[in-house]
Amino acid sequence: MYSLTVCDHIMIAHSFQGAEFGPAQRLHGATYAVEAEFRAPRLDHLNLLIDIGLAKVELRRILDTVDYNNLDVLPQLAGQNTTTEFMAAHLHALLATALREGVMGEGGRQVTSLKVLLRESPVAWAAFEGSV
Amino acid sequence: MYSLTVCDHIMIAHSFQGAEFGPAQRLHGATYAVEAEFRAPRLDHLNLLIDIGLAKVELRRILDTVDYNNLDVLPQLAGQNTTTEFMAAHLHALLATALREGVMGEGGRQVTSLKVLLRESPVAWAAFEGSV
Amino acid sequence: MYSLTVCDHIMIAHSFQGAEFGPAQRLHGATYAVEAEFRAPRLDHLNLLIDIGLAKVELRRILDTVDYNNLDVLPQLAGQNTTTEFMAAHLHALLATALREGVMGEGGRQVTSLKVLLRESPVAWAAFEGSV
Amino acid sequence: MYSLTVCDHIMIAHSFQGAEFGPAQRLHGATYAVEAEFRAPRLDHLNLLIDIGLAKVELRRILDTVDYNNLDVLPQLAGQNTTTEFMAAHLHALLATALREGVMGEGGRQVTSLKVLLRESPVAWAAFEGSV
Amino acid sequence: MYSLTVCDHIMIAHSFQGAEFGPAQRLHGATYAVEAEFRAPRLDHLNLLIDIGLAKVELRRILDTVDYNNLDVLPQLAGQNTTTEFMAAHLHALLATALREGVMGEGGRQVTSLKVLLRESPVAWAAFEGSV
Amino acid sequence: MYSLTVCDHIMIAHSFQGAEFGPAQRLHGATYAVEAEFRAPRLDHLNLLIDIGLAKVELRRILDTVDYNNLDVLPQLAGQNTTTEFMAAHLHALLATALREGVMGEGGRQVTSLKVLLRESPVAWAAFEGSV
Repeated sequence: MYSLTVCDHIMIAHSFQGAEFGPAQRLHGATYAVEAEFRAPRLDHLNLLIDIGLAKVELRRILDTVDYNNLDVLPQLAGQNTTTEFMAAHLHALLATALREGVMGEGGRQVTSLKVLLRESPVAWAAFEGSV
Repeated sequence: MYSLTVCDHIMIAHSFQGAEFGPAQRLHGATYAVEAEFRAPRLDHLNLLIDIGLAKVELRRILDTVDYNNLDVLPQLAGQNTTTEFMAAHLHALLATALREGVMGEGGRQVTSLKVLLRESPVAWAAFEGSV
Repeated sequence: MYSLTVCDHIMIAHSFQGAEFGPAQRLHGATYAVEAEFRAPRLDHLNLLIDIGLAKVELRRILDTVDYNNLDVLPQLAGQNTTTEFMAAHLHALLATALREGVMGEGGRQVTSLKVLLRESPVAWAAFEGSV
Repeated sequence: MYSLTVCDHIMIAHSFQGAEFGPAQRLHGATYAVEAEFRAPRLDHLNLLIDIGLAKVELRRILDTVDYNNLDVLPQLAGQNTTTEFMAAHLHALLATALREGVMGEGGRQVTSLKVLLRESPVAWAAFEGSV
Repeated sequence: MYSLTVCDHIMIAHSFQGAEFGPAQRLHGATYAVEAEFRAPRLDHLNLLIDIGLAKVELRRILDTVDYNNLDVLPQLAGQNTTTEFMAAHLHALLATALREGVMGEGGRQVTSLKVLLRESPVAWAAFEGSV
Repeated sequence: MYSLTVCDHIMIAHSFQGAEFGPAQRLHGATYAVEAEFRAPRLDHLNLLIDIGLAKVELRRILDTVDYNNLDVLPQLAGQNTTTEFMAAHLHALLATALREGVMGEGGRQVTSLKVLLRESPVAWAAFEGSV
């Protein structure tokens, strides 16, 4: 199985609902370093898993829907605790849709699974992986 | 599949038995940067895979059983070559037990698999992963 | 010249005033990985530059004044654009005061200069360094 | 499942064929930081997955077949676009053969799968994993 | 003294002249992760050392003069061994000129010194620093 | 001013004398990732600050005097608390001597200052820098 990973990052504000979160119930923020890992069983005729340029552009377009925002007030995230693990799944869904729609070219259509990993600090990160 | 990883580190002394180990047969030591990756198929009602605070505390409690020690003289490791891969499995067993006993809350009981990775230097690391 | 560096991190929300900031004028946030580098021309009788335990505790106490907060509403930062470079100097001043007051022991009083570096993303960081 | 990873790096020149590659059609180069992850279900009597010394030597020997070279003119890569994902599979095949031939000792024969990951920049990497 | 650092990277081919270079006399290549550190004694009225957006754009513009190229055939580098330390100084000169010409705004004119660091591999890097 | 840095690592055991060290009074150990930064005001006729191959070999030779050892029993360190900051200065002295003796070639004689940095964990490191 082949994999190709591209990285980017976002800077967001948010707060959490639930006493379990302690001080994280206050409005605070995070830099999420985002890694999108595309997996496919074979390469195309150019020896590419996916067009890395298209992948970076599409990842950026998707990240722009939340970057430099307060997640607490975004309609698409209403009522959700935007934990790192939740955001990994949220971004995974958006990227998976883009792959299925062919936004990342024919190579993107060959991607069978996808992992989105978000590093929130030097000592904690979360991911969601699943088929496309 | 979701995953959440928390990190910590330990500083230990040890030596190895067996000519295969060359200079590592002498008493030496290592900083192990430890990554514990918890995996679960779903999040709880707060969008948490596991309570990250509880996970860090429990990881720390388990690491304290070996941290700042000479592994050669610890009873629980008697007769073992404490290679990085062995120590990954040793810590995995302790964390898996804690998960099953509910020490990491209800979220911890939903964890289906666990990976413990130990970085021994910038150029070598080992891990053990398995179901909980 | 000797130096000793300890690290920690904070997760904050904030926004910037000024058209130059573009999308960063919106409420967003950051994880700042914080590195505090203490410099001294000699070590004490124990071969320590500074008691690393005391240094970590004091750095943590100082970071707690801003961690998990919206910097826009903190009284001590009122009217300031809390850029990374500004925050480095802000934390530098707090740590330098602690050093002068002896909170970090006699070793801390021997520290002649201090550098505080904040990493805001994988591709940008800022620092302030100066005498104590 | 146990895993053990060793790292090294190579510095190569190459160019790509195909308009999709844009400026990368020009002769350019890359540092590939190479990670070889060996996986096995159990350890040997010394608590080793594989002899890490032998693994490093063999990885180095294999990397020397391409290190400090222009990949465009190497006979074994003739007619191939030497993308990062392709090179991961190329090195995987060489390492898997070495494992099967016993070059990495009896431990190496117990390795059931292998992942070779190449980091081409701070924001992109590719890998190939498969059974041995 | 304040500092602000922004990062980018380039992928180049080159070869070296001189028996001292051993296998590096062959055409090979490198990914250079580039860090540009701007230093100034004070911040502007917005608490900025330099407009980070302008700095990234200008760094990118300068890197484009060598990125995805064979340095051996670039006129501006003719007759030079393009070692990492030499390339750090070469890029330093281009960035320093841009600062003096005001390309990075008024903030850029306040920059008193500049350090350009190039990481060529996980175990080696070089830098040039000097006044602007 | 130019600088060139090469990296390596050592794995040592040791213990500390003094109640201030708490649990670190027990025999434990550390992986020290070692960075040696050589500085010089100019490059040689090959555009080299120092022969990087010679520098790596000499750094390795010096590290071998302590690598895979219990520092508590090494004669050259008798009676010393081998703190990270002390070890940085100890290795600095050995490297500086090698430079002055010409072991690293004519380039090494042009080195005017040297910094040796030891990373003991992901959150702490120490260094010693001084003229050669």
